[in-house]
Amino acid sequence: MIPESHPRYRSLIIRERLAASTKTGVVSLEGLTAHGRGEAFDYLLGEKTTESALRAEKIAAALLLVARHPVISVNGNTAALVAKEIAELQVISKARVEVNLFHRTDERVKVISNLLKDQGITLVEGDVSRYIPLDHDRGLCHFDGMYSADVILVPLEDGDRAQALIAMGKKVIAIDLNPLSRTSKVATVPIIDEVTRAIPNITHFCKELCSEEIQELTQTINGSEFIKDALEYIRERLLDVLD
Amino acid sequence: MIPESHPRYRSLIIRERLAASTKTGVVSLEGLTAHGRGEAFDYLLGEKTTESALRAEKIAAALLLVARHPVISVNGNTAALVAKEIAELQVISKARVEVNLFHRTDERVKVISNLLKDQGITLVEGDVSRYIPLDHDRGLCHFDGMYSADVILVPLEDGDRAQALIAMGKKVIAIDLNPLSRTSKVATVPIIDEVTRAIPNITHFCKELCSEEIQELTQTINGSEFIKDALEYIRERLLDVLD
Repeated sequence: MIPESHPRYRSLIIRERLAASTKTGVVSLEGLTAHGRGEAFDYLLGEKTTESALRAEKIAAALLLVARHPVISVNGNTAALVAKEIAELQVISKARVEVNLFHRTDERVKVISNLLKDQGITLVEGDVSRYIPLDHDRGLCHFDGMYSADVILVPLEDGDRAQALIAMGKKVIAIDLNPLSRTSKVATVPIIDEVTRAIPNITHFCKELCSEEIQELTQTINGSEFIKDALEYIRERLLDVLD
Repeated sequence: MIPESHPRYRSLIIRERLAASTKTGVVSLEGLTAHGRGEAFDYLLGEKTTESALRAEKIAAALLLVARHPVISVNGNTAALVAKEIAELQVISKARVEVNLFHRTDERVKVISNLLKDQGITLVEGDVSRYIPLDHDRGLCHFDGMYSADVILVPLEDGDRAQALIAMGKKVIAIDLNPLSRTSKVATVPIIDEVTRAIPNITHFCKELCSEEIQELTQTINGSEFIKDALEYIRERLLDVLD
């Protein structure tokens, strides 16, 4: 038991939740290490949403709302951490939700799908094909899901796939704490924030934005700005600590 | 199989060794995540011992050698990664070695103790009490181990306990890749380096230092310098990326 008095209680509880999810097969062992890498960057970002990331979340909300066919791609870590929050985002954004796994087995797809449906998420299910030109299983997706999407929200994505989706002409919203990752670099909107903070923020903006704002926010998007902001933020923080 | 030619071979092999150690119970699932976090910081540090960290390792060696009652605290990740190296350090430093776990069960203590003894380490064993005022199981320690120690080496420590040990008047040598962690901040000597590099370096210095050097190195210790150096190093590296 982690005492609530622990100053990093929230981060430790999230870590415990992920570890517990390896027992059910929702999270892979590799997923645990990947989460740890994210934790390090979150530490550098002060474990809070920066102003710049909040703006990225606002643009993400606008993009989902103007999309003709928005899709949210869910992997094991995302399912373990924010299933309930994605259910809420689905209601407001009308996005389709699709399971996409790096370490894909039929069993894991089933376990994760059930977890998501238990939280009220409607899933795109049925046959998948290698519509995304990748030689690993992240290339498998649904025709009426990711393949037909114009805007895709990919929390905790790997760089290969983010790149492939962009090459297919899709707008990609990434949630990735590492501002140096290929995912962050290639995404249309890289949200450099922790997923349990980012998803509720996007949902909040989906509820709040008026059509004028949506138009304005989606007119010109410069993803590299968010990376630059994050790196500058980290550099500043390191300087503050030095003082 | 990871090819030896891989530029990050060493880091990937270490990760594999840790993942394998979850099967035996030596490493906790949370330990994998903690390791992932370390990996990210090590990446930012260029995956090598900085000049500043090497100096911290030299001071650590001197502190262990002048100690009246030196103790090395070992957790699951440390046991999985550097049991053999700690056995060598114990011989040269005459430090007592004690198992201390965040996720403590009798079974895990036993498995880890056996692993350490198989590598030739002599352990402080028997009854533990909550000598360290903490409301989780890291507070449990041995009277003739950590409780009586004047200098404690804590690889991969959590902040709460490092702080509590300092409050008990002990000198704490921490090995922690995160220069911003509370552990690094409160430690007498924060070694901001990877544990499989740090321990052999300390052992090396224990063999090399003469008594004059030991005296000189332990006279005035400024832990915050090592943090400052590490942060400056990372800031420089991030600047390179921004350019």
